[in-house]
Amino acid sequence: MKQEAFTMSLLLDYYGSLLTEKQRNAFDLYYNQDLSLAEIAEQEGISRQGVHDTINRTEAALLQMEQAIGCIERAGHIRKAMDMIRACAEALSSHEDPTVRKNAESILSAVASVKE
Amino acid sequence: MKQEAFTMSLLLDYYGSLLTEKQRNAFDLYYNQDLSLAEIAEQEGISRQGVHDTINRTEAALLQMEQAIGCIERAGHIRKAMDMIRACAEALSSHEDPTVRKNAESILSAVASVKE
Repeated sequence: MKQEAFTMSLLLDYYGSLLTEKQRNAFDLYYNQDLSLAEIAEQEGISRQGVHDTINRTEAALLQMEQAIGCIERAGHIRKAMDMIRACAEALSSHEDPTVRKNAESILSAVASVKE
Repeated sequence: MKQEAFTMSLLLDYYGSLLTEKQRNAFDLYYNQDLSLAEIAEQEGISRQGVHDTINRTEAALLQMEQAIGCIERAGHIRKAMDMIRACAEALSSHEDPTVRKNAESILSAVASVKE
C-alpha cells in the first residue's frame, strides 16, 4: 500500500495539524522514519492490521484535504513562477549597470524569502 | 458579533470546502451577501439563534483551520515578496538595454501568473 513517500511527507507537512495525534504519529513513523507496519505495531502496542487501517484512513483524509484546500498545488505554481523569476534575475545580476545589478539582487532576496 | 468581513471572506475562500453546506451557506449569506441574522433565518427557515450559533461555530472552525494550516499567513508573505519583485522589475522595464527589458517583462509575467 505504500504511496509515494515524498508526496505523503508533503501532505503531512501542510495538513498534519488537522490529524489526530495517533494518525500523525503512525504516518510519521511509516513515511518519514520508514518503519514497517510490524515495527510500528510493536512500538505502539497495537495490531499490524490496526496500523494498516490507521495509515490508510490518514492517507485518504490528507488527500481529501489537499483536494479541498490545494496547498500543494498552489505551492507548485508558486515554485514554477519563482524558478522563472530567479533565472531572469540571475541573468541580470552581473550586468554592467549597477542599478540593474541592485534590482536583480533585491529580486533574488525576495525570491529567497518566499516559503511555499 | 460580526467579525472583519474581508478576513472572514478570505477564510471562506481558502477553507470553505471543508465546511458543511449549511455552514458555508450561512457564512456566505452573512459575510459575502451581507444579510442580517433575521434575514438568513427567514430565508433558511430556522431560528435567528440557530443562524447565530452556526455562524459562531463556523468562524471558530475557520480560524482553527488557519491556525493549523496557515494559508492566509503564507499568502501574506508571498504577496509581500511579489510586491517587492514587481517594483524592482518595473524599475527595469524601460531600461535602454533590450536584454534587461526582456528579463524584466518575463519577471512581471511570472509575478502576474501567481495565484496566492
